[in-house]
Amino acid sequence: MLTLKEIGEFGLIDLIKKKFTPYGSDTIVGIDDDCAVVTGRDGFYTLYTCDSQVEGSHFITDLVPPYLLGQKILAVNLSDIAAMGGTPRFALLSLVLRSEISIEWIDTFLEGFRYKANQYAIEVIGGNLARTDSGLVIDVTCIGEVRRNRLLLRNQARVGDMILVTGFLGDAAAGLKILLEEQKMNTAREQYLLNRYLLPEPRIEVGKILAESKNRIALIDISDGFAQDLGHLLKQSRVGAIIDPERIPLSQQLVSWCSEQNYTPLDFASSGGEDYELIFTTAPENIDELRDKIQNDVGVPVTLIGEIINGDKLIFQKNEIRYEFQTRGWNHFTSS
Amino acid sequence: MLTLKEIGEFGLIDLIKKKFTPYGSDTIVGIDDDCAVVTGRDGFYTLYTCDSQVEGSHFITDLVPPYLLGQKILAVNLSDIAAMGGTPRFALLSLVLRSEISIEWIDTFLEGFRYKANQYAIEVIGGNLARTDSGLVIDVTCIGEVRRNRLLLRNQARVGDMILVTGFLGDAAAGLKILLEEQKMNTAREQYLLNRYLLPEPRIEVGKILAESKNRIALIDISDGFAQDLGHLLKQSRVGAIIDPERIPLSQQLVSWCSEQNYTPLDFASSGGEDYELIFTTAPENIDELRDKIQNDVGVPVTLIGEIINGDKLIFQKNEIRYEFQTRGWNHFTSS
Repeated sequence: MLTLKEIGEFGLIDLIKKKFTPYGSDTIVGIDDDCAVVTGRDGFYTLYTCDSQVEGSHFITDLVPPYLLGQKILAVNLSDIAAMGGTPRFALLSLVLRSEISIEWIDTFLEGFRYKANQYAIEVIGGNLARTDSGLVIDVTCIGEVRRNRLLLRNQARVGDMILVTGFLGDAAAGLKILLEEQKMNTAREQYLLNRYLLPEPRIEVGKILAESKNRIALIDISDGFAQDLGHLLKQSRVGAIIDPERIPLSQQLVSWCSEQNYTPLDFASSGGEDYELIFTTAPENIDELRDKIQNDVGVPVTLIGEIINGDKLIFQKNEIRYEFQTRGWNHFTSS
Repeated sequence: MLTLKEIGEFGLIDLIKKKFTPYGSDTIVGIDDDCAVVTGRDGFYTLYTCDSQVEGSHFITDLVPPYLLGQKILAVNLSDIAAMGGTPRFALLSLVLRSEISIEWIDTFLEGFRYKANQYAIEVIGGNLARTDSGLVIDVTCIGEVRRNRLLLRNQARVGDMILVTGFLGDAAAGLKILLEEQKMNTAREQYLLNRYLLPEPRIEVGKILAESKNRIALIDISDGFAQDLGHLLKQSRVGAIIDPERIPLSQQLVSWCSEQNYTPLDFASSGGEDYELIFTTAPENIDELRDKIQNDVGVPVTLIGEIINGDKLIFQKNEIRYEFQTRGWNHFTSS
């Protein structure tokens, strides 16, 4: 009997897409992007996204402080709103909890959630409570909006576009490793990496700058890993890409920690999940202005790392070494 | 250390409400009703609701066929849209699944979900997939809309209003008992009761008729049990109610099964959850027209069962026997 493990996450997504298409005229984007997009109030589209944090898969109650978990579950959703150039407005919070959980844990979780909601002026307007005798599940639906002529999609990359990323890649995956291996966290280096995993900062302001620029831009956030998420953008745009691996932005903390641990930083940066940075593509003439504006207004570095090419391959190339990258990002059902 | 079990579902809801209020001007209703209500497209409000089905709490994979589970999880959400007088438009489907689950199970579940979505012209525009090693959780967010002058809330009951319910109460709770005790299901009676548990029909059309009537109406659906849900309506409206227990509509199947099993049908009808019928209150002069229209257009019986009174009590009274009802509906964290 065929199981989910065998068809994997993307097999299941294909199955779901087939069942629930086509859409009506009020649905601008369905399952194909970071958010669903439907007709909203006058002049706006409404954006919908949802994301779960599952005990045992995404967090371990003994290892992840609930105050940080509360912030993270909302941040993860906000990253999807950012990836459409949108502004978050509302959230629904669905909690599946054991009866034995302490009110202190719940209250601290809710305080973290509220902190992040207040930071982005998001109203928590509803949700659901349910009981479980097994693992906790926290499911958040986030509702955002974007002006109709400012929506940014994954499918807008064209041959000759430059490929840029925000921030540094791979830190979160290193942070997770440090957490799971219960490595010493008493240095600023480990704390930085751990915080990048536990406290991702959604790039809402960057998404807005890109949307307001009125340039043709393809945009996606990095949740499953750089190579895999860039792959989604390429597939939706029906193009390929060539990346200079030496240009992929790495934090000095990641480089230093990898050196000590005998890891290759690029493995974390290309395949590690949960960076929640943005990848965008645009015509070469736009990049200086966009990069300056993002760096000046938001303080987030923006790095040019490659170019959109014909075809359907994601190629990493440096000097004479050229290889097609094997996407190894997180597949929720087949990874061990 | 205080646990969730001790403060219960309603204690937690109070905690959540306190943390996330007040709301801004685009939020018409927050956590206080069946759906959250925000400013929508021109002339409309947008309605949001979400509901989970949790393995072990709401369903057991060996007992509940996935085709029916797929229908039910959407129906449960639609009942909340019905309880605002709304029309459902979109759904997001969040699945937390084990890798070992069969594709056949998932596919059959999705087919059930699609069947119900098609029945109500709902588009499934997004969602999330996550992995668990413990219990399955299915979380659905449903998005509906209602004309701005047609929104029906829980807080509109006034002293002197009549109290009416749709359909028959208590069938679903009996069906659940039959399922859990693995009673013989080979008679039409048991099949009827079981179907009322497994295949609830959301009262979308009834909600629309009530909304379009332009009468002042308070409306809520019965998910946790008649007495408890009527209690929510009374609390929101700051009134009490007197109910004639002999008028509570009971199916002949429930009466017959209870007689055989030595149960009191009223226990099921007053405290059993998951009826997904509607309770509404309105001025006496409206009831004949509304009842006739609902019965003729939708084919659902509507029964007058009591009256709104001053105070804050829910009283069941018949002849000289008068007692205040103890709400014993489902509390998700303190029931055994």
